[in-house]
Amino acid sequence: MSTFFEAELREQPAVLQRLLEVGRERTESVAARIRERSPRFGVLAARGSSDNAARYGQYLLGIENAFLAALATPSVFTYYGGRPSMADALVIGISQSGQSPDIVEVVREGRRQGALTLAITNEPASPLASAAEMILTLEAGTEGSVAATKTYTAQLMVLAMLSAAWRGSGQAWAELQALPGQVQATLEANRETAAIAESLREHSRLVVLGRGYNLSTAFEITLKVKETSGVMAHGYSSADFLHGPKAILDRTLPVMVVSPVRAFGDLDAVTALAREQGAPLVVISDREDILGVADVALRLPLGVPEWLSPLVAVVPGQLWALGFSLARGLHPDAPRGLTKVTHTL
Amino acid sequence: MSTFFEAELREQPAVLQRLLEVGRERTESVAARIRERSPRFGVLAARGSSDNAARYGQYLLGIENAFLAALATPSVFTYYGGRPSMADALVIGISQSGQSPDIVEVVREGRRQGALTLAITNEPASPLASAAEMILTLEAGTEGSVAATKTYTAQLMVLAMLSAAWRGSGQAWAELQALPGQVQATLEANRETAAIAESLREHSRLVVLGRGYNLSTAFEITLKVKETSGVMAHGYSSADFLHGPKAILDRTLPVMVVSPVRAFGDLDAVTALAREQGAPLVVISDREDILGVADVALRLPLGVPEWLSPLVAVVPGQLWALGFSLARGLHPDAPRGLTKVTHTL
Repeated sequence: MSTFFEAELREQPAVLQRLLEVGRERTESVAARIRERSPRFGVLAARGSSDNAARYGQYLLGIENAFLAALATPSVFTYYGGRPSMADALVIGISQSGQSPDIVEVVREGRRQGALTLAITNEPASPLASAAEMILTLEAGTEGSVAATKTYTAQLMVLAMLSAAWRGSGQAWAELQALPGQVQATLEANRETAAIAESLREHSRLVVLGRGYNLSTAFEITLKVKETSGVMAHGYSSADFLHGPKAILDRTLPVMVVSPVRAFGDLDAVTALAREQGAPLVVISDREDILGVADVALRLPLGVPEWLSPLVAVVPGQLWALGFSLARGLHPDAPRGLTKVTHTL
Repeated sequence: MSTFFEAELREQPAVLQRLLEVGRERTESVAARIRERSPRFGVLAARGSSDNAARYGQYLLGIENAFLAALATPSVFTYYGGRPSMADALVIGISQSGQSPDIVEVVREGRRQGALTLAITNEPASPLASAAEMILTLEAGTEGSVAATKTYTAQLMVLAMLSAAWRGSGQAWAELQALPGQVQATLEANRETAAIAESLREHSRLVVLGRGYNLSTAFEITLKVKETSGVMAHGYSSADFLHGPKAILDRTLPVMVVSPVRAFGDLDAVTALAREQGAPLVVISDREDILGVADVALRLPLGVPEWLSPLVAVVPGQLWALGFSLARGLHPDAPRGLTKVTHTL
């Protein structure tokens, strides 16, 4: 079956390449303005896939830019009319369509209070873009699939470029240049992933675990699986998982572990526990030690730095969702009951 | 079966009453110190049930105290050695045991940078209490059950008292005084809840939806159900649920809706959708209109203000977890593979 979902996930290397070419100069301008204003903290407002991108941004800015950012709670602003103080903040709204009223409201309130505001969107003519002082566009072209793929990685790329420009790091820009090729290599290395996913099609539940930078990836993969196949998939930080939820592990619950570049003690502990319980184990990594214990090893190219690893690690998960959806007789472009633009307050 | 879990959840009115009696003066001192330092933003660090309390705090401080707080990302500090700037912040660590090294590290780093720091814990002699400048204790006595009940509501109570003291609101204190009796009334009104939960014991999946103040409640109920019964339960903001996850709804997936006091458009929309799909529907509310459409109506007492509603709304969920656990032949005090104190980095 020819689907937008598959065509668009294969388009990702080209989208990232284009962003690098046309987006650097404007990203440098935004970074200069941020340095000039030197905000004390950040607020990231987003929903759905964009919220997973926001979570990546939270880790990235915290680790690489020593900048602490909160994920916004939009209902505080919309339903409750709360006006938490953001005058010293950098407020970033992230939305493919730029339409969701709750995200627009957080950015609008930030600007009203005098915060520096930035919209990251695929739609430069959207309400979100109008609400913010600055805009960074995704340059991803139209997305035909309801479940986002290329706009998700484009959002990560914009955040990564912003971090590099803000740091003024030549090495970071060099690493960014290599990324489109690495995403292409990931697609090629995972040619069989969609077919392999068929083997687990009977399962109506899936746990995906990540930590640090790739917590965002775990969340995004579960969202893709939920959207395209209706399976109850849930993502956890392996640390949170140990504080209670691990009680759900058994041999009927497949576990997917996203663990590129770096080993985390708690993630290894959960992986060992899943093995002991006899749970089907899928691993996305570039590390042979953890790939070696998996029932299904989904391989990432070597040499991707950890701060950029979420842009490659999500790709096998997208392919998995594609295969899972088709194997369950569904159409990945048209998830049950979903529409491309969702309006929430 | 006599269990710590049940005994401790029934002890909640007494614990809250004691906290009100012994905790007010020290809470007023902490609030005075916060007003004096006037931090620009907050950072809340916690795991497990305490993280659900932190989320309540995030909404409460945002709505009632116009104070924006982030939920911390501990791995930024521990694994990555990131040092996000917190000199202007109020950093609050929340942990029943005060032991988890990652939570201690966030507070320690905050204090090192000159942030105002506060520990909320049941253990005044713990590493977390030592790391912070200020302490507010839970006064909950020993908790014998691995799955937290009375320490969870005590954490909410400490945060609610802090908000009241910081606002200097006499009305808020009056509302707090009524709360222990309202929690008692909730226990009495839900005498049959544990028995009713048996009717859904065959289901290995559960979705719990909330919004705003009671997003924390939805998350805490799913954690209790996971811990005590091994069921794959997951909590969502109804707004996030509409942005993708709603594709998983069908008649085999029970949906629990936590919706006291206030109607949310998106939560009503998901409730209607669950009805259409034929999903078993459980509602926790004090509102007759939404209780009326439920298969199982779990009633809350009238007159609890919304900002305190999470302290009553979680109670039927705790009773549900108890009944679910027993009906599935498990022991709620001893979840599979869990220990009371979890050390994560």
